[in-house]
Amino acid sequence: MSKPLILVVNDDGISASGIRNLIRIMNDFGDVVVVAPNSPQSGKSHAITIEATIRCDKVVIDDGPQEEYACSGTPVDCVKLAVNQILDRKPDLCVSGINHGSNSSINVIYSGTMSAALEGALEDIPSVGFSLLDYDHNADFSEAEPYIREIVKRVINNGLDSGVCLNVNIPKSLVGKTLKGLKVCRQANANWEEEFEARTDPKGKVYYWLTGKFINYDKGVDTDEWALANHYISVVPVQFDVTAHSSLSSVNKLLLDE
Amino acid sequence: MSKPLILVVNDDGISASGIRNLIRIMNDFGDVVVVAPNSPQSGKSHAITIEATIRCDKVVIDDGPQEEYACSGTPVDCVKLAVNQILDRKPDLCVSGINHGSNSSINVIYSGTMSAALEGALEDIPSVGFSLLDYDHNADFSEAEPYIREIVKRVINNGLDSGVCLNVNIPKSLVGKTLKGLKVCRQANANWEEEFEARTDPKGKVYYWLTGKFINYDKGVDTDEWALANHYISVVPVQFDVTAHSSLSSVNKLLLDE
Repeated sequence: MSKPLILVVNDDGISASGIRNLIRIMNDFGDVVVVAPNSPQSGKSHAITIEATIRCDKVVIDDGPQEEYACSGTPVDCVKLAVNQILDRKPDLCVSGINHGSNSSINVIYSGTMSAALEGALEDIPSVGFSLLDYDHNADFSEAEPYIREIVKRVINNGLDSGVCLNVNIPKSLVGKTLKGLKVCRQANANWEEEFEARTDPKGKVYYWLTGKFINYDKGVDTDEWALANHYISVVPVQFDVTAHSSLSSVNKLLLDE
Repeated sequence: MSKPLILVVNDDGISASGIRNLIRIMNDFGDVVVVAPNSPQSGKSHAITIEATIRCDKVVIDDGPQEEYACSGTPVDCVKLAVNQILDRKPDLCVSGINHGSNSSINVIYSGTMSAALEGALEDIPSVGFSLLDYDHNADFSEAEPYIREIVKRVINNGLDSGVCLNVNIPKSLVGKTLKGLKVCRQANANWEEEFEARTDPKGKVYYWLTGKFINYDKGVDTDEWALANHYISVVPVQFDVTAHSSLSSVNKLLLDE
C-alpha cells in the first residue's frame, strides 16, 4: 500500500515554528507536500487572490523528506494551488497550522489557518486545523504532539464526514498543569470588542491599528472556550454551510407576509 | 423620532456603481454614513488587517446628503472602524453592496460584501448584503430597486434574529423577463472547480491567475441557486456559527472511542 499523501499549510508563513513542527510530525505519517504562504497571513480568513497574480516557488528550508512550495497568496490560495497545480492526486489529508494563537470560538471566521482547513473540506479532503494558544515563536509544542499524532492517525484511518473539517485548539503548556485530553465541542458565542488605536504619522495624518478585547458571552459547558479554560484540547467540527436554518421561517414571515 | 442611522459598505470599492446606487436609495430611509474600501476588495472574505496600519479618510464623491469615508482596509475593517471610531451610536441598519456579481451558494464564504454584512450581525446590527448577478460597471439596478426598498423597509421596521444577516442575490435584468419576486432559501451545495492559468513573466518565471468554473451539485428546489435560475431574488439568512452540529457525535466517536 502506498503511503498517505499529506498536504501541510498554515497562515503564519512557511518559516513559522508551528508549521516546522507540524511538518516534522507529518513526515512520520506519509509523503508530505507543503504549500504555505511566503509571509505571515494571519487574519486573512477565506480570502482568495483574484485581482492579482500569484507566485509559487519550490523551496528547501530544512533537510526533511518533505517537498515544499512558498506561495505569495493567502492560505486558501495555497490549498487551491496545491490541489489544482502542484499535486498529481488528491491528498489523503490536509493539515493546517500549528497556528500561533487561538482559533477558538469566533476566531474561526477570521482565521487563515482554519479557512485553509475548510477549503480542504470543500475539496473533499479530510482536513484538520491545529492551533496552540501561545503566540511565542519559541512556543513549546511537545505536550501537544501526542494528541496531534492521535488525531491525525484516526482521521487518516477513518476520514471525516463529507464537507466537515476539525478545528483543534490546544491550551498553552503550563508548568505544573497537564492537558486533560480532548473535548468535542461547539463554537462558543464570543466576540471581539474592538478598540482601534489612532496614531499620527510623521506628516500629521491619522492612521489606525486594530486591537481588541475578547469577550465570551457563552456560559455553556459544551463550548470550545469552556474546554480550553478547563485545560482540555477543544475539537469543533466545522462546516461551510452558513445558512441560519433556524431563521428560515422568521425571514419568510418578515419578507413575504402581505 | 430621529431618522434611522444607516451604515453602507461594500467590497468593490467606494466608487463602484453598485454602492453609489445603494447610497442613493438609502438616503430616502435615513441618515447615511458610508465607510467603504478605497480600492476593490473582492474575494477578501472575512479578512481583517492586523499586520499593517489602516487609513480612513473623509471624502466627498457626489452631492448627496451622506457622509463618506474611504478606507484602506478590508470590508470587515470598514464595519469595525465605522462602529468603533466613526459613528457616535450603533447604526440601525448595515447594508453592503450592491455587489457586482453573485454571492449565492459557496460564494458567500469568499465574499467581502457578505462578510461585511456578517460583521454587522456580529455587532448586533440588522444587516443585509445585496448582490446583482451582473459584473458590468454599467449594470442596470432599476428592476432590483423596488425589491431592495421593500426589504430595507421591513428590516428597519422589524429587525432580524440576533446574529443573523441576509444574503440577497438578484438575477441580472433580462429583456422580456420580469423578476418573479423573493424566495427565502438555504445556501446551495455548490463549489468552484479551479483552473489556474499559468503564465510566464518577461523574466521567464511562472506566475498564476486564479480562474474557475462554478458547479452546482445541489438538486434541491429550496436553494438560492434554484431561485436565481428561476428568476427569483434569493434571500438566505446567514449566521456565524460554523459548528457542524450534526457531526458532533461522529467526531466524538472517531476521537474518543478506545
